[in-house]
Amino acid sequence: MIKVVIIGAGNLATHLYRNIQKTQGLELIQMFNRNSQHLDFVGNPELIASKIDDIKEADIYLLAIKDEALADFALEFPEFDGLVAHCSGSENIECVSRFENYGVFYPLQSFSKERPVDFDHIPICLEANSEKNLDFLKQVAKKLSDQIFEVNSSQRKALHLSAVFVNNFSNHLFALAADYCEQNGLPFDILKPLIKETVDKIDSLPPFSAQTGPALRKDQKTIEAHLEMLDDNRKKIYTILTESIQKLHGKEL
Amino acid sequence: MIKVVIIGAGNLATHLYRNIQKTQGLELIQMFNRNSQHLDFVGNPELIASKIDDIKEADIYLLAIKDEALADFALEFPEFDGLVAHCSGSENIECVSRFENYGVFYPLQSFSKERPVDFDHIPICLEANSEKNLDFLKQVAKKLSDQIFEVNSSQRKALHLSAVFVNNFSNHLFALAADYCEQNGLPFDILKPLIKETVDKIDSLPPFSAQTGPALRKDQKTIEAHLEMLDDNRKKIYTILTESIQKLHGKEL
Repeated sequence: MIKVVIIGAGNLATHLYRNIQKTQGLELIQMFNRNSQHLDFVGNPELIASKIDDIKEADIYLLAIKDEALADFALEFPEFDGLVAHCSGSENIECVSRFENYGVFYPLQSFSKERPVDFDHIPICLEANSEKNLDFLKQVAKKLSDQIFEVNSSQRKALHLSAVFVNNFSNHLFALAADYCEQNGLPFDILKPLIKETVDKIDSLPPFSAQTGPALRKDQKTIEAHLEMLDDNRKKIYTILTESIQKLHGKEL
Repeated sequence: MIKVVIIGAGNLATHLYRNIQKTQGLELIQMFNRNSQHLDFVGNPELIASKIDDIKEADIYLLAIKDEALADFALEFPEFDGLVAHCSGSENIECVSRFENYGVFYPLQSFSKERPVDFDHIPICLEANSEKNLDFLKQVAKKLSDQIFEVNSSQRKALHLSAVFVNNFSNHLFALAADYCEQNGLPFDILKPLIKETVDKIDSLPPFSAQTGPALRKDQKTIEAHLEMLDDNRKKIYTILTESIQKLHGKEL
């Protein structure tokens, strides 16, 4: 059994807790957070620690804390033999380099406390300070998911940035459309099948080939009609994304 | 049995053909296109017509042709008793107003020839020149889908524009991310579970509430680090969408 300690009490820590608890071959021996009240989702109070000196010996420590807290926490953290891995998409591996065995364990997904997320197919991006530690991280990650990737710090940052585009920004486009539907007395539900098809399509076609719409067709009449219907903010977004589609497809405006 | 003639041979005509053929209570009696070679997907050659004078009497004519061809085609089309409905998201109902019975039959979905689409849950937006004709359109549409909406021409245009945001523009964000992943030696597949979660979330949370990320958190350090990693085009998109998220959430930059 591989003994695991999770540091943190946020969304990711919560989901790691739920998934590691039910995973064969991993034994969750402790959840650490300075404010133990934030660990109220932990069923067994014996698992909870809130003082650094109480942290137990384990095979792996997963630091699921905020990016800005990582550097300071790493300085305070006791020196154990176990591997210390941070879970951040945007921090370098070096921020945990004062330990003998260290690495990165970054699950690429959007976590919210209220939505259960099954780790089975979540990409887990791994990096470590040695081959031996990388192998060990793989061994741990493979018990949780069938999507394991070896990703260096600069690639991980590129992924984290890509995630902003595909997750934060596309969600914002949905929010703008929902708001616009409401202004026009239309239920947002009416757009949901289209949104689902947009995403289902990426399984059979690369998004470049799946592109459709007035921007790609250079349908200037429709583009102008659309621009007239929009407020300034949406007009700016419409213009820039239309230009960007035409650039990516090699048709300059 | 309601007799149906489909005009056109594009993506929408193809999908209407496939779905109407298998729908109880609807009898597809003809497929019309000036160039009959484009109707090669039609199994039974007796269903095919390419001369306007050969068009048969039917209960409903679905004009699944390009927006820019609609006005001219409507002028040439013979006067039948059957209802003439166009299928465009952006054209007014008036472009078919020279007929006695007319309307709009707009299925809100993204159709590509190679991907089968089941109409069962596709929103069909209806408009007609009379209550009687609207009832008839509803009767037809309900045989195909359980998502029927009465939508006027200005609402339909708003929907069509919203579709550009949620479908064309979010697909383009996926394409930009795919391209960026490739530049960084990463497979696009690694982002797919995140994209799916982004969309699955809209079933349980309105997109406004599902928003996460550095823009919403006003995490200026991450925003600046991201901007430094991007080319000019992506930088513009990142900046404008970040500002837009902050505006929508009431936090002006």
